[in-house]
Amino acid sequence: MQNFTATYTDQYQLAMAQVYFKNGHGQNRAVFDYFFRKLPFDGGYAVFAGLDYLLDVLQNLRFSEEDIAYLKKQDFDEDFLEYLKEFRFRGNIYSVREGDIVFPTRPVLQVEASIIEAQIIETILLNLLNFQTLIATKASRIRLVAGDRLLLDFGLRRAQASGGYFATRAAIIGGFDGTSNVVAARDFNISVSGTMAHSFIQSYDEELTAFRAFAEGRPKDCVLLVDTYDTLKSGVPNAITVAKEMEERGQKLLGIRLDSGDLAYLARESRKLLDEAGLEYVKIAASNQLDEYVIKSLLEQQAPIDVFGVGTNLIIGDPDSALDGVYKLAFFEDKPRIKISESLSKVTLPHKKQVFRIKDKNGKCIGADAVGLDTQEKINVMYHPFEPYKSMELGDYEQEALLKKVMNNGISSIEKRNLKEIADYSLSRLAELPIEYKRFNNPHIYKVGISNTLKEERDKLIAEHKI
Amino acid sequence: MQNFTATYTDQYQLAMAQVYFKNGHGQNRAVFDYFFRKLPFDGGYAVFAGLDYLLDVLQNLRFSEEDIAYLKKQDFDEDFLEYLKEFRFRGNIYSVREGDIVFPTRPVLQVEASIIEAQIIETILLNLLNFQTLIATKASRIRLVAGDRLLLDFGLRRAQASGGYFATRAAIIGGFDGTSNVVAARDFNISVSGTMAHSFIQSYDEELTAFRAFAEGRPKDCVLLVDTYDTLKSGVPNAITVAKEMEERGQKLLGIRLDSGDLAYLARESRKLLDEAGLEYVKIAASNQLDEYVIKSLLEQQAPIDVFGVGTNLIIGDPDSALDGVYKLAFFEDKPRIKISESLSKVTLPHKKQVFRIKDKNGKCIGADAVGLDTQEKINVMYHPFEPYKSMELGDYEQEALLKKVMNNGISSIEKRNLKEIADYSLSRLAELPIEYKRFNNPHIYKVGISNTLKEERDKLIAEHKI
Repeated sequence: MQNFTATYTDQYQLAMAQVYFKNGHGQNRAVFDYFFRKLPFDGGYAVFAGLDYLLDVLQNLRFSEEDIAYLKKQDFDEDFLEYLKEFRFRGNIYSVREGDIVFPTRPVLQVEASIIEAQIIETILLNLLNFQTLIATKASRIRLVAGDRLLLDFGLRRAQASGGYFATRAAIIGGFDGTSNVVAARDFNISVSGTMAHSFIQSYDEELTAFRAFAEGRPKDCVLLVDTYDTLKSGVPNAITVAKEMEERGQKLLGIRLDSGDLAYLARESRKLLDEAGLEYVKIAASNQLDEYVIKSLLEQQAPIDVFGVGTNLIIGDPDSALDGVYKLAFFEDKPRIKISESLSKVTLPHKKQVFRIKDKNGKCIGADAVGLDTQEKINVMYHPFEPYKSMELGDYEQEALLKKVMNNGISSIEKRNLKEIADYSLSRLAELPIEYKRFNNPHIYKVGISNTLKEERDKLIAEHKI
Repeated sequence: MQNFTATYTDQYQLAMAQVYFKNGHGQNRAVFDYFFRKLPFDGGYAVFAGLDYLLDVLQNLRFSEEDIAYLKKQDFDEDFLEYLKEFRFRGNIYSVREGDIVFPTRPVLQVEASIIEAQIIETILLNLLNFQTLIATKASRIRLVAGDRLLLDFGLRRAQASGGYFATRAAIIGGFDGTSNVVAARDFNISVSGTMAHSFIQSYDEELTAFRAFAEGRPKDCVLLVDTYDTLKSGVPNAITVAKEMEERGQKLLGIRLDSGDLAYLARESRKLLDEAGLEYVKIAASNQLDEYVIKSLLEQQAPIDVFGVGTNLIIGDPDSALDGVYKLAFFEDKPRIKISESLSKVTLPHKKQVFRIKDKNGKCIGADAVGLDTQEKINVMYHPFEPYKSMELGDYEQEALLKKVMNNGISSIEKRNLKEIADYSLSRLAELPIEYKRFNNPHIYKVGISNTLKEERDKLIAEHKI
């Protein structure tokens, strides 16, 4: 686990906190919504990730002595610093479960805490949830096309420095099987993979000598990289020689890896050579600038690839590279709060809220989430949030309340799940979503609506702030 | 400083290391080149960043007890684990200085170490250098258009989790003035900025009350966010009221911040209102999806903006989001090593090498770096690395050797510089580069060539590996 102290925040949180503290408003209760406005990758859904890790971080968040000493030099007041020394996050969090599928413009999570506590955690909350949700979503897309083939995260070297640790965590939630990242594997109990780089082959005078050395040194998980000099003329024939020698020792070559060239062609030709040598059991792994589109194309060409190693495009969440998740005040000192914008789509939803997933009698999503006040138990009609003449009757559907209490007075109140369990949950939720929301080109748009009560409350506040 | 242990690596490094260890090759000396193949942002140069931090990490890199316990369960051999317990990086590093401008296809840095040590550090080296070089380059482009206006990094919430820490460091090297990121400011002694979010305004019933509270609480660095309800009808007039009240108390409003809408229009109209009120000294800050192109456009429209806060597009290095830096074996056991590829541009350069920057008599770059063997003191003719008929006479030029020893037997051998010094150095190096390499559209291509000796050595190895 990485060590975060409470200065892992934006300066303005501390500036505002000091003002609240001085004015005596600091302990008053606020509710903030976490939500995003646009689905990444022009996709039809997102996979929510980062929550369980965030809860661990929040439970342990403190200002260290080093932090306090630093802030002292930054001209913060003594009494405020005394308060920060004792700072703990003691709020409540209501959230969708980690791994669930989520959609834009409606709360994914709500923080209810003293306004100082709620502000100080904003940055780390956004930072952990935005990035992991982005990567889990990317990984889920790749899983959708890869079927049951093995998917490995190879991205650490192209990550944002130590951010790679979280990318790996999120990739597993999105459906990846394993990683090359040792420290993430250690901390999150992920299956770890990795055999050889080109440098290993280069370090021997002959490719065959290199393969032999590796097969002797790591016989149980031996995957030979075959493209250092010439894949079909040198790499694969040498791998076959070594595989045969391994058979004589009662061992089995696990696989070969292709890392350049035309992967569809090379996989097919390699498969032929391996099969002709009676090595049907030797797997073919491929890497090199893969993403969901390349993998889809390879499989459409029936490239006989068993394992995909995905690096850069996974780890940076290409091409979006960021989720636009925001954190907006919805309620404070017993009043609903709103932020106005020239564009109605950027006006925030006031009040403490609940989100309902609308399902048919068979538990299948009909493709709609409805947002109401947290006091509503059911929503009969939902309205398009920005186009008031569009509405939908919901009375006959099942409605699943999505925001559950996950933290109570600063203590996590959910059962611990490992990444595999979160990933399985994610898959089960994705299975409830009809296929038209999962396609890559112009996916069907999932509807998000608001209840009549919420709409009226919002419109009243807009009118009040009208100038 | 973040805590990295030696499992911050890819599994294959450890798999290869065990094989080398068992074969008795592990302590033999290897030379690896770090270089990248493509300039980010379709730009004309890159700013090398991450080195000094990397050296600190390498000096302290160890396998922790937790690491060893984990690897034991991963089926590594006892004697190899005993070796890892005592693992230290004891190699030499030759490198361009941090902050220098660098170009594709030629070594930026060389590692000379036992092959096990050189492999184990590969991942963290790539991870720290690739990302920081990407962000420093992005920041440098933004600085080029922003002139002497204040540039602030606001990106933490959209970073790859803890990767934001390094993005901030790199942004300063590329020319930014400050950050909102408190922990990075604390560790790297960066100027830290931040005043208020929309939530602060929303938490009061009236915008004016919120502004007054803030001005009283933080009078020394008061920047009022004016777009929560209506910028020109509410935000700016209220800010003017507060500025006047501050004047009566002998204080000065530092600025206002625009965070939505048409920034050029709103800045101009706000400036007018402020000036008419005799508040010429109040600065205008702008944020909201800025990058070098938006800032360039705003300044071409003569928008009177004094401070730019840049978030997402800086921190993710949009649109590239990753630098394709690689780490390739060039020399091992007294022999030059090469990796062949079907594309000549991906064939590696063998041998220990030196890189020379070619300059005219006035110390101005002519736009060329030449790569030779490390035994060469000067290069008389350089050849295009992939187009052998292109060559250039260099005899009459000054030649500056760029790769200097920065680590000796695992100990950093360079003087410590703070980020400001590295940023100043970067600026001075950029000043030596003619302007045509700095433009955004089709910048002039900086030439990278190789010496005749190096070319012959490479071609000999290609011939040897021809099948």
